[in-house]
Amino acid sequence: MSLIVMKFGGTSVGDVERIKKAAEKVVSEIQQGHKVAVVVSAMAGVTDRLEGYCSTMASQTDYSEHDAVVSAGEQVTAGLMALALQRHGYKARSWQGWQLGLHTDAFYGKARIKDIQASALRQRLEWGEVAVVAGFQGVNEEDRITTLGRGGSDTSAVALAVALKADRCDIYTDVDGVFTTDPRIVPQATKMSRVSYEEMLELASLGAKVLQERSVEMAMRFRMPVQVLSTFEDAVGSALPGTLVTEGTLDMEDKVVTGIAYSRNEAQITLVRIADKPGVAAKIFAPLARAEINVDMIVQTASRDDGSTDLSFTIAREDHDRAFSVLEKEKGSIGYTKLLSLKNVAKISLVGIGMRSHAGVAAKMFETLAAKGINILVIETSEINTSVLIAEEYTELALRALHAAYGLGEEDAG
Amino acid sequence: MSLIVMKFGGTSVGDVERIKKAAEKVVSEIQQGHKVAVVVSAMAGVTDRLEGYCSTMASQTDYSEHDAVVSAGEQVTAGLMALALQRHGYKARSWQGWQLGLHTDAFYGKARIKDIQASALRQRLEWGEVAVVAGFQGVNEEDRITTLGRGGSDTSAVALAVALKADRCDIYTDVDGVFTTDPRIVPQATKMSRVSYEEMLELASLGAKVLQERSVEMAMRFRMPVQVLSTFEDAVGSALPGTLVTEGTLDMEDKVVTGIAYSRNEAQITLVRIADKPGVAAKIFAPLARAEINVDMIVQTASRDDGSTDLSFTIAREDHDRAFSVLEKEKGSIGYTKLLSLKNVAKISLVGIGMRSHAGVAAKMFETLAAKGINILVIETSEINTSVLIAEEYTELALRALHAAYGLGEEDAG
Repeated sequence: MSLIVMKFGGTSVGDVERIKKAAEKVVSEIQQGHKVAVVVSAMAGVTDRLEGYCSTMASQTDYSEHDAVVSAGEQVTAGLMALALQRHGYKARSWQGWQLGLHTDAFYGKARIKDIQASALRQRLEWGEVAVVAGFQGVNEEDRITTLGRGGSDTSAVALAVALKADRCDIYTDVDGVFTTDPRIVPQATKMSRVSYEEMLELASLGAKVLQERSVEMAMRFRMPVQVLSTFEDAVGSALPGTLVTEGTLDMEDKVVTGIAYSRNEAQITLVRIADKPGVAAKIFAPLARAEINVDMIVQTASRDDGSTDLSFTIAREDHDRAFSVLEKEKGSIGYTKLLSLKNVAKISLVGIGMRSHAGVAAKMFETLAAKGINILVIETSEINTSVLIAEEYTELALRALHAAYGLGEEDAG
Repeated sequence: MSLIVMKFGGTSVGDVERIKKAAEKVVSEIQQGHKVAVVVSAMAGVTDRLEGYCSTMASQTDYSEHDAVVSAGEQVTAGLMALALQRHGYKARSWQGWQLGLHTDAFYGKARIKDIQASALRQRLEWGEVAVVAGFQGVNEEDRITTLGRGGSDTSAVALAVALKADRCDIYTDVDGVFTTDPRIVPQATKMSRVSYEEMLELASLGAKVLQERSVEMAMRFRMPVQVLSTFEDAVGSALPGTLVTEGTLDMEDKVVTGIAYSRNEAQITLVRIADKPGVAAKIFAPLARAEINVDMIVQTASRDDGSTDLSFTIAREDHDRAFSVLEKEKGSIGYTKLLSLKNVAKISLVGIGMRSHAGVAAKMFETLAAKGINILVIETSEINTSVLIAEEYTELALRALHAAYGLGEEDAG
């Protein structure tokens, strides 16, 4: 007998009928002899509506109140799921973050889990009760409600699985698993049967929205097997293979590239002719950090004879205008001749733990893109990822060319 | 400087704009130098929607989950109201029942308040913060969420006012106050400026839906002045006279009748020829109680020569069919010859503390109704109320005739 945490996302519990369907999946696992703790998101659209109320109410949102408001969505789903399970004759009860003792720090809106006091819940699981936990929410030291950021229910689920020493954490979502790349763009994309924590973490941070990044970090840290699978298939996690996120193994390294992520939501700003000396970078990036603008890829050209250089960086497209005006205000302090910007750029990232032991990944990427006439604006590499910035209009072409070049989708890529 | 509890009902916080308007009323009281704790209901329609989800989910609702689900409505309004107050530059924070320490018994769906640990909230009021409390909800000994029944936010407000030793509890609603009778039926009805706790309690229990009955009981027990007033007038409680529910005074007793309540939602069942001997009533009412059917007016005719008698009682109309079939099943045990029912009857009740010291109230009522050709089916009197059951179609006629006969609405009836 295993202990499984089953997490259902917003579309999986999108309305009352879908909650009933999800409850049937839980019943199916129980009937196979497993103990189950369920984690639920808010019904699809509810969090957006509640966030809309908050932003209408105040220009400067107090995130402690924001969290009190938006956590109500998960509270409702948890109670409804418990009722749906009772229909099938099972004992079930809902647990809010504060009831469970899911303690977080005080960073409202993006709180991090500190610990989970799961002993009461575990005791009730032993007695045969099904636990239904409201995802996304916790409580801080002051007994106030916190939320874990968008996608935070994934992290709730993994953290609960860790606290309960569960055998597996199944994340039910509206896709079949993790794909080699976006199948809406590349029809040849295939579902991976397995992916390593490290790769999944890169994919999540690079724009693949299947799992919240923090949930993968936590799974990796505690070596909790996580399975991503479709809520709209009839079978359940113990029978239906989704994508298992797990420890990297030697055979995984045979493949150089496991998956390709992309983000179209990028913009680039270039500062022309800044002084190539210590301290200039701080003058650029400190005011951007104060404005809470996240900077991603940074590249600096070789110094000119006059000691000047150009510096480019990328940011999320919605931050472009703010970043631009921050830099304009700092012109005197930074000392550049002009600002250039590219608002329509995309980032394409190859990910694979095989890169550690294989050379030439970047070279093949450049060749492939060059053959299609795609210009590379910026290159960035890390141990298991190679990313390029290109004009956004080439996104689909680049994805398809790279997917084919690395032999993805030809067979199971796990 | 006073400490005032301001409670806003569902229509008063019906949408984001109305919450902003209600916040302006709070600001107005603060600017007059008062400390304020606010109690809010769910936005209009939200509780109904959440209850609808629950009943779709399960035929036998587990009320502990029902309460977890429906309490989410007040949670949302409380957070939004705190945000709305912050817009005006005030410190404000929301309090859920469990955060406040509003402890109740374990009767989910209809829990009763046991105590409120208001010391933390009071401390913050002293520091100049505005408290916004989610009405309708509390927490029981097991740390599970309970709700106080329909209209329960009134009781939350009065209980909080008592716990905080507030100077007054203002209940903002969609009417101007408590009227001598329903002004939709009797245009001459006027708002009372004052009404005694005892009278208000009778009016509330007899179908006047302005305040939840328990809130009046609690206000009476702790002698907390409660003011009912309109949320849609510009002025606020410290300036706008609504209806003050307060101690009865001698001058109030000059009026025999203060208000007239009615309930159209009545049905009557008569058991013909039951044995007029001890134990028969128990055989009738025990099975009805087991079926959770509330019986109201009971009347038994004088015994016939053969020792048989007829017994009639009234119930809420929606319970009629269930009550009828309960009694059919018990026919053998009770021993009646047949069951008669009247499904369209209404109860009209005169209320006034002056009845204690004035005779002839009932006689005048009967004369007035007789003059209009209205037949009285049942009469029931208590110390400060005289009620009759009549055919429902005469409701408006009876209300208008009685309102005029007792001189209500001619001047301030307080």
